[in-house]
This record gives sequence, structure tokens and C-alpha cells, in this order.
Amino acid sequence: MIRHTVVFRLKHAPGSEEETAFLYDAMTILAAIPGVEKFEPLREVSPKNDYAFGFSMEFADQAAYDGYNGHPGHVAFVRDRWMNEVEDFLEIDYAPL
Amino acid sequence: MIRHTVVFRLKHAPGSEEETAFLYDAMTILAAIPGVEKFEPLREVSPKNDYAFGFSMEFADQAAYDGYNGHPGHVAFVRDRWMNEVEDFLEIDYAPL
Repeated sequence: MIRHTVVFRLKHAPGSEEETAFLYDAMTILAAIPGVEKFEPLREVSPKNDYAFGFSMEFADQAAYDGYNGHPGHVAFVRDRWMNEVEDFLEIDYAPL
Repeated sequence: MIRHTVVFRLKHAPGSEEETAFLYDAMTILAAIPGVEKFEPLREVSPKNDYAFGFSMEFADQAAYDGYNGHPGHVAFVRDRWMNEVEDFLEIDYAPL
């Protein structure tokens, strides 16, 4: 199991329609890609960092993760939305210890 | 629900006895503190950051999280072990969106 997480902050104003649209579209598009399990849209609530949201998802193995990364839906979302609307982000991936 | 996560890198050499001892002690001490649910020791596997391990745990609410933070076992572990053995870390906390 690989748990892929990304914590991020948007360029959009908090509570804006653009923020809602980005989160909704991300959830809809990314969670539907084959291999994605346990997709979770999350709010980052620690005051110890400057991120505001997170996504967490799991893959059965590296092949499933690679399939997600190369999927046209993911590639297009990163190119057309993520690169334009995300201010800052950090990817953290976990496997069982 | 609040999911508290911390991703970190140790001062110890990878595979060293000190590394194993730190991880084992952390798991044993922290997971036993009242209010801690779903404690997970994790290996950070993304090449896109410099962290090596992570812990994830959940709390029912802020009161449970506060109880953990102030618990003598947590306070002592942070003071005696975390501050001395951890090279770098980042805390990320999530709530459902």
C-alpha cells in the first residue's frame, strides 16, 4: 500500500467560488481515476504550517500509483488546473513501516 | 475527527539500532496515550521531500487532541527524545473537508 498525500494552498480567496470549484473538480476528476482508493478531501487545520487543504489517496502498489500519475485525466488536471490555481504544495507519500 | 500527522527525519543513521529504538519507543509510548486512535508508524517514500518517516493518529475532537499534547508521556517524549533525535519535521493536521 502506498498512501499518496498532497497538502496545498490555493491562489483563490478563502470561501470563494473559485476555491469551491477547484476542490469539487479535483475530487470529482482525481477520485475517479482507476487505482485510486480511499480518496479523501481534507482541510489542513494545524497553525504550524501555511497550507489550507490536503488530498489523501491510497494505491495498492507502485504500478497502480504509476498508472494514476500517467493517466490522461491526472495529467490534464495538473497541467490545466493545479499549475494555475495552486500557490504552494508538498507531496508526502507513505508506506507501512 | 482530527488526523494529526508528523513527517520527520532522524539524526540517526538509516538502519541503525538508534533509529529502530526511537521508532519502537515512539510507537509504544505515543500510541498508548489516551485519546490516540488509529496510530500508524509510516515510512515516507516520496523522493520529492527529504523526510524519512511519519506518524499518523486520529483524535475524536480537539479536547482529545489537547489531552494528548498535554499528557505527561507526550511531554516527556518530546522533551527527552524528539528534541534530541529528530533532525527535521513538519506537522500537518487534517479535518474532513
